[in-house]
Amino acid sequence: MANTDEKRSILSLTVDNKPGVLSRIIGLFSGRSFNIESLCVAATTDPQVSRITLVTSGDTRVLEQIKKQLNKLINVIKVMDFTDQPFVQGEVALVKVRAKAEYRAEILRTVDIFRARVVDASPEYYIVEITGDNGKIDAFLSLIKPMGIKETARTGTIALGREKK
Amino acid sequence: MANTDEKRSILSLTVDNKPGVLSRIIGLFSGRSFNIESLCVAATTDPQVSRITLVTSGDTRVLEQIKKQLNKLINVIKVMDFTDQPFVQGEVALVKVRAKAEYRAEILRTVDIFRARVVDASPEYYIVEITGDNGKIDAFLSLIKPMGIKETARTGTIALGREKK
Repeated sequence: MANTDEKRSILSLTVDNKPGVLSRIIGLFSGRSFNIESLCVAATTDPQVSRITLVTSGDTRVLEQIKKQLNKLINVIKVMDFTDQPFVQGEVALVKVRAKAEYRAEILRTVDIFRARVVDASPEYYIVEITGDNGKIDAFLSLIKPMGIKETARTGTIALGREKK
Repeated sequence: MANTDEKRSILSLTVDNKPGVLSRIIGLFSGRSFNIESLCVAATTDPQVSRITLVTSGDTRVLEQIKKQLNKLINVIKVMDFTDQPFVQGEVALVKVRAKAEYRAEILRTVDIFRARVVDASPEYYIVEITGDNGKIDAFLSLIKPMGIKETARTGTIALGREKK
């Protein structure tokens, strides 16, 4: 479509910690076949309130409509869009990599460069924990991949707005 | 209830990366008012496959029923329950803490002890990134709380099974 304007957006929602809230929020996206790239849901320091961080990419006009509907949901407290404001982001991944003897030194070197760390080791596998933004984790995975990745678990992105200085 | 047997469970699901899958999975939990403590969804190294990590607490018999239904969903590839097997877990949190002059040294000391790091600083706030298991992050937050937390974003737990040695 000529008018399509797609970009990666990070949304952060604070919501009441009640069953069904998450389901309604995700329904707004899946109802429009709108892609969710990653999603994190966890408690805040107030046990009544959860924070949802959602990374999406899609038509920005459709996203504006979804944001309006999110704001109308009764258990949604606040909707923030980090697309056009400064923010800090974080993610963690666990990567189970094949620890073949001839690759071990190279794996550990790569782990050091990325300030990652080996959190479990067996004769055949290392489990590596790496923290950083999305791009850093992608770069680490692409370097490690030729040595043999058995499985990965990623949290998806979380974000907080920077203070205006 | 006398017969209730509740515990914290970590489930890890690999699923087809298609719209609507997440919504159906969460529906199985919310339909039974089953609590989801945290949830992470992100891509794996295979772009067709996403991994969902879910932390729940509730009646184990109800959870067994939910797991059976999850296994029947057409886009669910595999359901793993880490409750009774060895695993490695990870989580990251971003914490915006008030950086009052008289507390700064204490905040930075606590950051060092937990091997966390300050990722943004303004005259009034620090943003701290901390990686570790659920309990480590809870402990950090409870130490920092008296100094004034403005907001937090947590990813929730991810996990990978350890290899049998």
